[in-house]
Amino acid sequence: MDTLIRNGLIVTASECYTGDIAIEAGKIVQIGTGLEGADEIIDATGKYVFPGAIDVHVHLEMPSGALVTSDDFFSGTVAAAHGGTTCIIDFATQERGKPLSQAIATRRAVADSKTVIDYALHLEIIEVNERVLAEINELVKSGYPSFKLYMAYEEIMLQQDDLLSVLNQLAESGGIPMVHTENAWYIRQKVRRLLSKGKTATAYHPLSRPPEGEAEAAGRIILAGELVGCPVYIAHVSCSETLAKITAAQHNGLMVFAETCPQYLLLSSACFDEPEPERYVCSPPLRDPSHQEHLWPGLARGNLQVVSTDHCSWWLRGQKDQAENFTQIPGGLPGIETRLPLLYTFGVRTGHLSLNRLAAVTSTNPAKIFGLFPQKGTIMPGSDADLVIFDPHREVRLTAESLHQRVDHNPYAHLTVRGYPSVTLSRGRVIVRDGHFLGEPGMGRFLLRQPFEHGLTLL
Amino acid sequence: MDTLIRNGLIVTASECYTGDIAIEAGKIVQIGTGLEGADEIIDATGKYVFPGAIDVHVHLEMPSGALVTSDDFFSGTVAAAHGGTTCIIDFATQERGKPLSQAIATRRAVADSKTVIDYALHLEIIEVNERVLAEINELVKSGYPSFKLYMAYEEIMLQQDDLLSVLNQLAESGGIPMVHTENAWYIRQKVRRLLSKGKTATAYHPLSRPPEGEAEAAGRIILAGELVGCPVYIAHVSCSETLAKITAAQHNGLMVFAETCPQYLLLSSACFDEPEPERYVCSPPLRDPSHQEHLWPGLARGNLQVVSTDHCSWWLRGQKDQAENFTQIPGGLPGIETRLPLLYTFGVRTGHLSLNRLAAVTSTNPAKIFGLFPQKGTIMPGSDADLVIFDPHREVRLTAESLHQRVDHNPYAHLTVRGYPSVTLSRGRVIVRDGHFLGEPGMGRFLLRQPFEHGLTLL
Amino acid sequence: MDTLIRNGLIVTASECYTGDIAIEAGKIVQIGTGLEGADEIIDATGKYVFPGAIDVHVHLEMPSGALVTSDDFFSGTVAAAHGGTTCIIDFATQERGKPLSQAIATRRAVADSKTVIDYALHLEIIEVNERVLAEINELVKSGYPSFKLYMAYEEIMLQQDDLLSVLNQLAESGGIPMVHTENAWYIRQKVRRLLSKGKTATAYHPLSRPPEGEAEAAGRIILAGELVGCPVYIAHVSCSETLAKITAAQHNGLMVFAETCPQYLLLSSACFDEPEPERYVCSPPLRDPSHQEHLWPGLARGNLQVVSTDHCSWWLRGQKDQAENFTQIPGGLPGIETRLPLLYTFGVRTGHLSLNRLAAVTSTNPAKIFGLFPQKGTIMPGSDADLVIFDPHREVRLTAESLHQRVDHNPYAHLTVRGYPSVTLSRGRVIVRDGHFLGEPGMGRFLLRQPFEHGLTLL
Amino acid sequence: MDTLIRNGLIVTASECYTGDIAIEAGKIVQIGTGLEGADEIIDATGKYVFPGAIDVHVHLEMPSGALVTSDDFFSGTVAAAHGGTTCIIDFATQERGKPLSQAIATRRAVADSKTVIDYALHLEIIEVNERVLAEINELVKSGYPSFKLYMAYEEIMLQQDDLLSVLNQLAESGGIPMVHTENAWYIRQKVRRLLSKGKTATAYHPLSRPPEGEAEAAGRIILAGELVGCPVYIAHVSCSETLAKITAAQHNGLMVFAETCPQYLLLSSACFDEPEPERYVCSPPLRDPSHQEHLWPGLARGNLQVVSTDHCSWWLRGQKDQAENFTQIPGGLPGIETRLPLLYTFGVRTGHLSLNRLAAVTSTNPAKIFGLFPQKGTIMPGSDADLVIFDPHREVRLTAESLHQRVDHNPYAHLTVRGYPSVTLSRGRVIVRDGHFLGEPGMGRFLLRQPFEHGLTLL
Repeated sequence: MDTLIRNGLIVTASECYTGDIAIEAGKIVQIGTGLEGADEIIDATGKYVFPGAIDVHVHLEMPSGALVTSDDFFSGTVAAAHGGTTCIIDFATQERGKPLSQAIATRRAVADSKTVIDYALHLEIIEVNERVLAEINELVKSGYPSFKLYMAYEEIMLQQDDLLSVLNQLAESGGIPMVHTENAWYIRQKVRRLLSKGKTATAYHPLSRPPEGEAEAAGRIILAGELVGCPVYIAHVSCSETLAKITAAQHNGLMVFAETCPQYLLLSSACFDEPEPERYVCSPPLRDPSHQEHLWPGLARGNLQVVSTDHCSWWLRGQKDQAENFTQIPGGLPGIETRLPLLYTFGVRTGHLSLNRLAAVTSTNPAKIFGLFPQKGTIMPGSDADLVIFDPHREVRLTAESLHQRVDHNPYAHLTVRGYPSVTLSRGRVIVRDGHFLGEPGMGRFLLRQPFEHGLTLL
Repeated sequence: MDTLIRNGLIVTASECYTGDIAIEAGKIVQIGTGLEGADEIIDATGKYVFPGAIDVHVHLEMPSGALVTSDDFFSGTVAAAHGGTTCIIDFATQERGKPLSQAIATRRAVADSKTVIDYALHLEIIEVNERVLAEINELVKSGYPSFKLYMAYEEIMLQQDDLLSVLNQLAESGGIPMVHTENAWYIRQKVRRLLSKGKTATAYHPLSRPPEGEAEAAGRIILAGELVGCPVYIAHVSCSETLAKITAAQHNGLMVFAETCPQYLLLSSACFDEPEPERYVCSPPLRDPSHQEHLWPGLARGNLQVVSTDHCSWWLRGQKDQAENFTQIPGGLPGIETRLPLLYTFGVRTGHLSLNRLAAVTSTNPAKIFGLFPQKGTIMPGSDADLVIFDPHREVRLTAESLHQRVDHNPYAHLTVRGYPSVTLSRGRVIVRDGHFLGEPGMGRFLLRQPFEHGLTLL
Repeated sequence: MDTLIRNGLIVTASECYTGDIAIEAGKIVQIGTGLEGADEIIDATGKYVFPGAIDVHVHLEMPSGALVTSDDFFSGTVAAAHGGTTCIIDFATQERGKPLSQAIATRRAVADSKTVIDYALHLEIIEVNERVLAEINELVKSGYPSFKLYMAYEEIMLQQDDLLSVLNQLAESGGIPMVHTENAWYIRQKVRRLLSKGKTATAYHPLSRPPEGEAEAAGRIILAGELVGCPVYIAHVSCSETLAKITAAQHNGLMVFAETCPQYLLLSSACFDEPEPERYVCSPPLRDPSHQEHLWPGLARGNLQVVSTDHCSWWLRGQKDQAENFTQIPGGLPGIETRLPLLYTFGVRTGHLSLNRLAAVTSTNPAKIFGLFPQKGTIMPGSDADLVIFDPHREVRLTAESLHQRVDHNPYAHLTVRGYPSVTLSRGRVIVRDGHFLGEPGMGRFLLRQPFEHGLTLL
Repeated sequence: MDTLIRNGLIVTASECYTGDIAIEAGKIVQIGTGLEGADEIIDATGKYVFPGAIDVHVHLEMPSGALVTSDDFFSGTVAAAHGGTTCIIDFATQERGKPLSQAIATRRAVADSKTVIDYALHLEIIEVNERVLAEINELVKSGYPSFKLYMAYEEIMLQQDDLLSVLNQLAESGGIPMVHTENAWYIRQKVRRLLSKGKTATAYHPLSRPPEGEAEAAGRIILAGELVGCPVYIAHVSCSETLAKITAAQHNGLMVFAETCPQYLLLSSACFDEPEPERYVCSPPLRDPSHQEHLWPGLARGNLQVVSTDHCSWWLRGQKDQAENFTQIPGGLPGIETRLPLLYTFGVRTGHLSLNRLAAVTSTNPAKIFGLFPQKGTIMPGSDADLVIFDPHREVRLTAESLHQRVDHNPYAHLTVRGYPSVTLSRGRVIVRDGHFLGEPGMGRFLLRQPFEHGLTLL
């Protein structure tokens, strides 16, 4: 036995119990009480032991035009590890006219040597034809079940028929789409009207992408999934209107899943009254705070199954502050490091979420939906020993400086969390202890995944 | 270490994995791979290991007028154990004018010395006043969180205001009502009309209690729960109309839980065309087979969270066959022994339910809803070692003779199941092995339970 | 031809057109353009001609304990006529142990000689048995299709089974219940708690009867109607919670109708901050103003079909101001005179309602639902010439002094309406012209009505 | 006074009453009893007088490739008149690259000299750009409020963004789209798969366009209307799935209107078992008969507001029987003549619809939705004297020979109706009497119409 975690309150999506966890060769081998005989013993008395958090929506080292996001696969995954995240799914963007496998190769060439936690890639589809559909089928079978589709962003979005073709193929092959649901046409109208009136300031960004445009696209992709019998996963739900479409679909028995992100649960459009509001530009945009009253119960009741971060860090100085109007501000917020402490502090401590539900939405459900379960996503013998020992009493002020994300601002800088990871293990190895990173670049493994399982029991 | 179960496919509500389970002093102490060193080793290779099934709705040794049901607490719990059920919740009926504690004492005096598996009691409330409400409050705090209420059966049912008073008290105290939802007034009209036309035959029984009467009562108790903020558990859902009320309530965010039973999933009113149709008289009655097309998906999707049996065995000869008209036939079916094999064969094998969902609806959810979790309801260190080693290939014809229920008929006698318990353990002790009962009367313990937990994470 | 109304904008529930109306022997005999040759000609140029408004919910000369409401059948119907109402339905309360016909006789003995407009009576059922049910059946057949049932007010309310028995009888006979939906049990709890804390002030009245209690009762009577196949008419809807129950039922195809009243559309619980707040005590109570944002669209879209007044006038000095606590204040507001001007000013002028919809909710729908159509409720040949010539420009401040209701306060005294009746005709006779009453006591006729028609085309 | 219709039962959407109708200069001038003094008197004793039926969905003299439909504007409108239809709305198809006004001119050049009843044109938009949107705006203002949009048929359908642009423009301008909701992509997949398997027979037509494809498109256009605030009118609803989308939208307060057609209410896919099944090819296709159980109540309750015919007559010999596979069969059924008798016989006589509802769905609602009210669509002074005197006892067998449609088959040939028009008047002139046509080509007038009115009171 290599490592023993003793006497923690073990939290899974379904259970909480005090016990020990024995680890050998990177796997959990035993769970029990009174376990003994390991090389290394970690005392978790008074602490929670969560399954390592999985962040299924991150953008590291993401190129966009001439720019690249500030966090590369090293800094980003180190930050993730400090925050209790032991697995991420990033994206490989299809290169026009080239095989999808090329996109994977390109992305892995960048990432493999840097990541410090295990990772996988969603394929981002931006062009559809018969050949692409055939490749999608092959990829699903060979470990790539999930595909990112955009309904906004003119350069990369798919038209309606292409959306249908991909969903149809995924239904046949056993894959699942993750969809950015905003209506591009609607945003175009809003942007045109605002700019034509000289309304270029950052604060107009949320007005250019209103809730109803997000909800329409969500409704439309749900209809598409219903038509062809394909599950649908809706990314970064930001508003009650979208949630209502999702809830209605689930009520009708459709396989519709959705995530929200900490920024939609905790920040609001009131941020645009602060200095340097471009810090808060992301899409979908931050909404009126009233939406949060719907998102928290949606998350608690299971209409939303996942919290991811959509981490996408841009330098405030030199990247976000260079725009002539709100449409040019690179969109995205950092967040890969802060998800678990934020959800614990403002979700569990406030009574919105149980401990089990926290484990479910940060680890178990993401793993199940995206084909990583049971290797990841729970604490049981045979699973990877990706674990977080979480100190419910540790207080941390979330300033940019106190974190490990490589970026010069933090949207949660005004907040102090109570509850923070003290030890993070990746496949049995301690990679963060008391704020010190102990791993090394490239130790994260690339993960192949299982096809989508229709009889899924989510929590 | 007393006992080791080796190499089974361990099934929880959330996970399936191959591993070993170590048991000491009646508790699961370790789960893992490569465990060693027990006094007794049970090889579970090729078999499933389920958390012991919990049957939250059984009537053993139940008096009704001059009659008593055929299964006493010994024969009934022995049968349960053969079928993989390691815990039951039976009922203690309030005695008019006496303290509720008296009802518990009376019932335990009958049961304690006979039961072979752990058991608990729902309090059946048939009379409400301020004193009773105060006692309910005390009982919730001292281990009795659940109360059975009847909306049918004139002698024991509660009037509308009394239902509200009890739900209101339970909301305050942290309890949960289990409600028999049929509209007594409606049944009275139907019975009167049928009898007045000389329609006395057994086959009129289902016509005297139509689906709409069940649905109205379900809708009414849901409204009551909504009004006072009380969770509601609806017993033995038999029809799509009731399910629709439940689903709509859940869609509106209400805490509504419900069970169905194997008889409603597998038998139908077509049975009344068979000889000796009084065998099939139970309430709510068997319905048109079309309802099953709604119940199975409702169970799979989580609108129904539990499958119980409502086991209530009457002798066909001498009890059920003595009636002059359908209203006099003692109502109830045996079923305590056959739930798990039936659900596995006709639920899992047919694709209606996953293995996880089977564990959820027979064990984890009942334990969580009724305050037995995590002592019962899952497989984790610290939990009672109530376990079922289930052979997916064993075939059994469900004749009355081949079973251990003490009753001279079986409604599933025409069915052969594939998949059957081979070993049942109660708190670590093997009580059934290969069809042989190895326990003894009175070894089952009486269980006190936790109050209802509002943030419940069900599966 | 007796009378000719020339050149008005004739408004029905479905149409608006400019034309003339010829009247003979109290009936409309022709509608057209260029009509000539009458004894009396009324020029309606620039004015609207509405079908006489029908108020299906008024309490005149109502005894309650030792008190009687201030408006008798003369003052009340004179006031109605001034406000454009040409027909009312008041109530006859069952006398315990006596035939229902007795209640009608008693009430007609008071009313017949005083009323100045046509009127009918709902039977108020407060006691149910087989004989009463048989009488209900006879009454429906002989001109009394509607029955008022209370779910609140201990002395007169029906228990759950009696509600079902009456609805069941009405379903068979072709009648319709008008139901006061508040949950008596819930109010009792609230009142007890408030009084026990010494909270006796008038402002606690609305807190003692919260929206959820109204909604529960509405939901419950809807379930009852669904069970026995009976239409249900829900009186004085005051809140969005009740409206939601109604809308959901209609979405499921149930025959559920409902009224609201001007006080719920225009006044709110903010009134309790004013001096002499007992002026505003009625039940259901005035609600938070946010409910009005739901009631207006509900009225416009047809989820609410009727606006009545629930006119029930108590003297402020000597009756309403005598209470020791809020439970003793006689409940009810005056309103019989002001409905049409209020709805025109604050409904039509604001864009909430079209002219057609105004005619529908004040005249056509009430007539259709309660069996008065086509004698009353529209403008067509053969119908009674109950007509209102309405001046859209006349402004009136609604002080108690400027009105004809016999009562010393008016809840709308702060409002000025723009749009007021200038001439009111009852069966062809001008009974109000420019604020002068020209009729005489007893000229109103008692009306027998048709059974409820299931295929009803409402607007 | 030119004409007097005496003593009929006058039926409007809201009322039924016995009376006389006086007509002068093509207009109704008086309605009443005892009217006298006309040049011509028509005795309607024992008959109904309906407002002339309006058929808002017909294709006369429609070119399609090298073919033209068999009924031209003369034969088609003569047939309409025989069946009680006094007004039609046909289509003018945008000519690519040319002004929309050109399409109107082209179409009127064909129609004006032939039509025998009043008519209007929907503009069919097949190409969208800024200029077209500007023209739409102008057309709405100048009498053309309605625009036909296709979501199926590759050559003429609009892509998703163009649909949004048009709806957005209509929302601003006050217009309304009539939408053919079938998903082109889905049909393409189905057709490809069928043909690739050699499944070319006519009976595969319905399998190539399943209900779910219609429902998806309906759901999608409803979302579009919700997004931009535009009313939506869904053409020829054929199935319960589409109706469910419509009903849900209406429940959420959206302005969604819809029509069905007699073929979907009365015929089914069982017709494809008959000889010459190509007679029954239309799109959406005839469905399983179970859908009718949903469509009738949807029509009765007001979820469907209109019955039109989608009349599109192709010769069976020479046109419909020339196809090599089901995709080549010209789609469309005749029906312009038989709507009213069919709906009366199988709707009113069976109890599905009241007389009022029949008038509403064939005349009043179409007139209101498409801007013809109150000139058309009701019986009141000032309206056009478009009237149908309908004999409820006249029996007619609906063979192709007995009708006036110019086509060699009739899908209702197996049916005998009871109830048939005996006299049809167009603007006061008798154009059909007892089966004889008395009008002349070109006497129908072209109608300009009003913009869509949001506060619409439908029946």
